[in-house]
Amino acid sequence: MNEREAQSIVKSKLSKDRYEHTLRVAQTAKQLAEIFNASTKKAVLAGLLHDYAKCNPPDELKEQIKHFRLPKHLLHYHKELWHGPVGAKIIKEEYMVTDEDIFHAIYYHTTARENMSLLEKIIYVADYIEPGRKFPGVEEVRKLAEVNLDLATHRAIRNSMIHLLKKDAIIFPDTFLAYNQLTKIIGGVK
Amino acid sequence: MNEREAQSIVKSKLSKDRYEHTLRVAQTAKQLAEIFNASTKKAVLAGLLHDYAKCNPPDELKEQIKHFRLPKHLLHYHKELWHGPVGAKIIKEEYMVTDEDIFHAIYYHTTARENMSLLEKIIYVADYIEPGRKFPGVEEVRKLAEVNLDLATHRAIRNSMIHLLKKDAIIFPDTFLAYNQLTKIIGGVK
Repeated sequence: MNEREAQSIVKSKLSKDRYEHTLRVAQTAKQLAEIFNASTKKAVLAGLLHDYAKCNPPDELKEQIKHFRLPKHLLHYHKELWHGPVGAKIIKEEYMVTDEDIFHAIYYHTTARENMSLLEKIIYVADYIEPGRKFPGVEEVRKLAEVNLDLATHRAIRNSMIHLLKKDAIIFPDTFLAYNQLTKIIGGVK
Repeated sequence: MNEREAQSIVKSKLSKDRYEHTLRVAQTAKQLAEIFNASTKKAVLAGLLHDYAKCNPPDELKEQIKHFRLPKHLLHYHKELWHGPVGAKIIKEEYMVTDEDIFHAIYYHTTARENMSLLEKIIYVADYIEPGRKFPGVEEVRKLAEVNLDLATHRAIRNSMIHLLKKDAIIFPDTFLAYNQLTKIIGGVK
């Protein structure tokens, strides 16, 4: 699949706003790939495809979790988390983009996880800092993302967890594990 | 062991400030036990004994974790977490206070955990709200603790996690699990 094909398949699946977000994520991912010596081709493709299933209705996502035999415990967590794993599966199994790195970058772009690859961190951070994002803390992460990808990923995950805690929301276990691991890596408090 | 004996053994182990904190925790725990129909005798004993090992030097706590065959993964987390499990073991095995409820209340008073008993919640919250505590958010938890112990425990755990995240500190897994479980119980966001 090339960049144009990826654009075309997501354009028909997403709302206008979501599609524009997607283009910005792909562009930001490309810039990060250049800074941190990752494949810009993979970064752009993963960026374009990361929200493939974002606009699927919850009932459809639920069916797709069953259809693709994704972990059932996903259903016990917020429906906002479902589109990553579902989108990753569709892109791999229906569009035959079998690159594991792109698969994981799409799969974990909402939750993060332990042992994230370079591309996973790039997509996670690009999704957080793309120029359309305005929330508090984003500017700090943008600056960190120019120099230290681990620190940028850590801050993005940390800010997301604080946001969830402040609204009494359940935190997905992979997110917690990613936070603790990156805290060790960046030399935070034990 | 009666209340006087408990006071006497912790007085010789703790600094003056820590001993006074201990008396306030015991008194607060007694009030909570009255509100929520727990044993006031157990609440006072657990309150008096919860910080038994708090002033032990880290090297001694480390040796005690090995001696009592406590989970070794404790050593990978902050030393502030060690005195709960060590104190619980000493109170049980050396002072022969074999009540399991008191043992768990001391063991988990710093980290919390899933499936906390009534007494565990009482000691966790009493330690958080005793009248000497001044940090932001404590007044809200004091008010909640007059009417809803689950909500008070949830808020205390949540505030502690936000505090840890803001200083880039690792979060103990039991604390995270307790947060998610209590968030479900109080009807927070899935």
